[in-house]
Amino acid sequence: MNALTNNIGVANSNSPHQLPQTPASLEHLTEEAEKLFADLEELSRDIAGVSRPSYGEAETKAFELIEKFAENEGLITYRDSAANLVVTLEDISDDAEYILIGSHLDSVPQGGNYDGAAGVIAGLLCLVEMKRSGNTPEIPVKVIALRGEESAWFGACYLGSKALLGKLDEAEQDLLQRDDNRPLRDHMSDCGADVERIAKGELLIDTSKIRAFFELHIEQGPVMIARNLPVAAVTGIRGNIRHRKIKCIGEAGHSGAVPRWLRKDAVFATAELITRIDDHWTTILQHGGDLVATCGILSTDPQHHAMSRIPGEVTFSFEARSQYEHTLAAIEALLHSECATITHERRVNFEFDKPVKTSPAVLDQDLVDRINNACIAENLPVEAIPSGAGHDASLFANAGVSTGMIFVRNRNGSHNPEEEMDMDDFIRGLSVLYRTITEFNL
Amino acid sequence: MNALTNNIGVANSNSPHQLPQTPASLEHLTEEAEKLFADLEELSRDIAGVSRPSYGEAETKAFELIEKFAENEGLITYRDSAANLVVTLEDISDDAEYILIGSHLDSVPQGGNYDGAAGVIAGLLCLVEMKRSGNTPEIPVKVIALRGEESAWFGACYLGSKALLGKLDEAEQDLLQRDDNRPLRDHMSDCGADVERIAKGELLIDTSKIRAFFELHIEQGPVMIARNLPVAAVTGIRGNIRHRKIKCIGEAGHSGAVPRWLRKDAVFATAELITRIDDHWTTILQHGGDLVATCGILSTDPQHHAMSRIPGEVTFSFEARSQYEHTLAAIEALLHSECATITHERRVNFEFDKPVKTSPAVLDQDLVDRINNACIAENLPVEAIPSGAGHDASLFANAGVSTGMIFVRNRNGSHNPEEEMDMDDFIRGLSVLYRTITEFNL
Repeated sequence: MNALTNNIGVANSNSPHQLPQTPASLEHLTEEAEKLFADLEELSRDIAGVSRPSYGEAETKAFELIEKFAENEGLITYRDSAANLVVTLEDISDDAEYILIGSHLDSVPQGGNYDGAAGVIAGLLCLVEMKRSGNTPEIPVKVIALRGEESAWFGACYLGSKALLGKLDEAEQDLLQRDDNRPLRDHMSDCGADVERIAKGELLIDTSKIRAFFELHIEQGPVMIARNLPVAAVTGIRGNIRHRKIKCIGEAGHSGAVPRWLRKDAVFATAELITRIDDHWTTILQHGGDLVATCGILSTDPQHHAMSRIPGEVTFSFEARSQYEHTLAAIEALLHSECATITHERRVNFEFDKPVKTSPAVLDQDLVDRINNACIAENLPVEAIPSGAGHDASLFANAGVSTGMIFVRNRNGSHNPEEEMDMDDFIRGLSVLYRTITEFNL
Repeated sequence: MNALTNNIGVANSNSPHQLPQTPASLEHLTEEAEKLFADLEELSRDIAGVSRPSYGEAETKAFELIEKFAENEGLITYRDSAANLVVTLEDISDDAEYILIGSHLDSVPQGGNYDGAAGVIAGLLCLVEMKRSGNTPEIPVKVIALRGEESAWFGACYLGSKALLGKLDEAEQDLLQRDDNRPLRDHMSDCGADVERIAKGELLIDTSKIRAFFELHIEQGPVMIARNLPVAAVTGIRGNIRHRKIKCIGEAGHSGAVPRWLRKDAVFATAELITRIDDHWTTILQHGGDLVATCGILSTDPQHHAMSRIPGEVTFSFEARSQYEHTLAAIEALLHSECATITHERRVNFEFDKPVKTSPAVLDQDLVDRINNACIAENLPVEAIPSGAGHDASLFANAGVSTGMIFVRNRNGSHNPEEEMDMDDFIRGLSVLYRTITEFNL
């Protein structure tokens, strides 16, 4: 598989892929897909884009839409103890291993229609194809529509997966909904979740029975557009380390009257720190590592800053994301080490808040290979890419389930109404998912 | 004068000077100086520090204090057409050349007692010493207490000097006082200024008759404290170029989902720009140039920034100050050239507002030498330093008058109540000024 190996790895700026003009194997399901997405949009349309609040009315309506469609196709549906929706081809006994396909149905406020829903509809259409064709895989398949993946409504994410996996802590259950200020536990209860078992941190799903978890999701970045890549296997889901507020403290003074050798300039010190981190970032990428670094918030003190005043204080956020725990540890160490040097050279001080860390999720290399092989069978270019954003899949991966992810190309990022997935690309992604599942051997 | 030449130049971080324990030649005027400063503080004390508004009541009271003291010493006083106060030893004919010593008596709100006043009191005490000792210099001496040097009250500075030199423009005369909202022209008129002649831009002083202008002023930076230098000649008054608002425009995006090669990150771009300017600054200083650079204001967009969002926009101010016009031109060109490179490399854009420029004021090298020689005669260390802040002296220098400045060491900067000048240092500065004046030959 040399051709494959050469194409896998960190996304790069080589020339974009060429696409063959062959139809996707499940092209005949285009109409069903279009109808499902259109109905879903219809029930959740907002002033701009769609709004499907976690554990809210539009999310539940979306569940009912999927249920009705599934039942019309002769599929079986039920809600699990965490109020998520499950669809299967037939009854599956409790002790049987199965493949689980899932994603979420909520959206951010005034978001796009595809983020999450694409994965649920893809799973559903896999079951529809199996049912209609009689091409039943050796291993049973369950499709799960998860609730509450977006942090926009309660301030925390992956709520449906966490509840199912016994990882929704007390503090999260007390979180208030942004619009009605009612706690998450009440919203969960309204939807039929067993909040008492969830409160105890009980595992509501037997993860040992999940042979593999697959999630299809739109890409939330621009890589696949740039690479002309309709479908991609995901190599891993980046973890992150985040400082909400780092302070660089220097000393304010008259900009004209204090010469360079007596200055304690917080802006020049912070600029140098960011530039040094940028240099390390380049080096890490050059050596084949995976990293993105972001200082999304940066500001001098509006109460005291002035054009002719040496800035005495700068606050900034810092976030690093990587697929590799060791890279996150390295960049954190580099951050502190560069601050120490700059403190010495520029006579400033850096004050750090406590970092918040999320572990990377390692996706199963065997599943990556299977997805890549399915891409080849579909005459699609092969290039695996990392996921910078977090997904329900990472919860399953970190719970010890073999997990694979399929990205579908998407324009304009996600979490905004301009999110734009071509239906052709979706059907290609669906076909890759279907091949991967049906060719899965125990 | 090798010893001198070696010590003159840009302030540096060599070891601090050693001070001889000999008294200043005008030490016997310490009591008078203390009394004058104490009375001045008394009449203008505020909740913190002192407040002497430009063309305001406390400034006028300060004028009256100086007048009364001068008249008690047998000196002559009068107000000029711009309502500044003039003190002389005797009547001076209109066609006689004279030495002018001056500074201002206003202060910023809740400022220090010495910024400006030190120069007026030093001039006054020079006349007192001449009168008492009968040591009259060959060339007559006038002392001028200027009004309205601080920009804090009307938003523009050097008002008294400008009015006198025919440079107070219409727009400035319309400026409103920050507390009472009355225009400057009314305040000037209240103080007795000839606002009609000022409005016409008439030169109210014959600058061709001013053989030299001297201003003694507290240093507003920390250099002389660091160098253990009680008194210093000033080499020049820095000019500046200022951009109030430069925008770096990138593209916002999901911090995890957009890889480095597709990013348009405004923070990393701005940090690199600032770091490059810092490198150029170092190089210019290493080659003996004079420069300070400041980005006093720096901020991502508070409406849109977030920890996990690639910053799409950064705004920042830029100010460079130098004694040399060519250095200001060079740093401006470097700023644009570095922005062009970064625009190319990082796919961002920089938008510049129109810069505001103030020319440097060149002080007379002959007067610098005379002040340095007076320092030597007073057993003081000799090191000339540039003035980063602007002064009335720069108006006279730029009007073609040979101008010299003497700085007196001061702790904690100026424009704040913590401003702190030792009376010993003041008396040393006074003695240097007195020597410079009395040893002045036509």
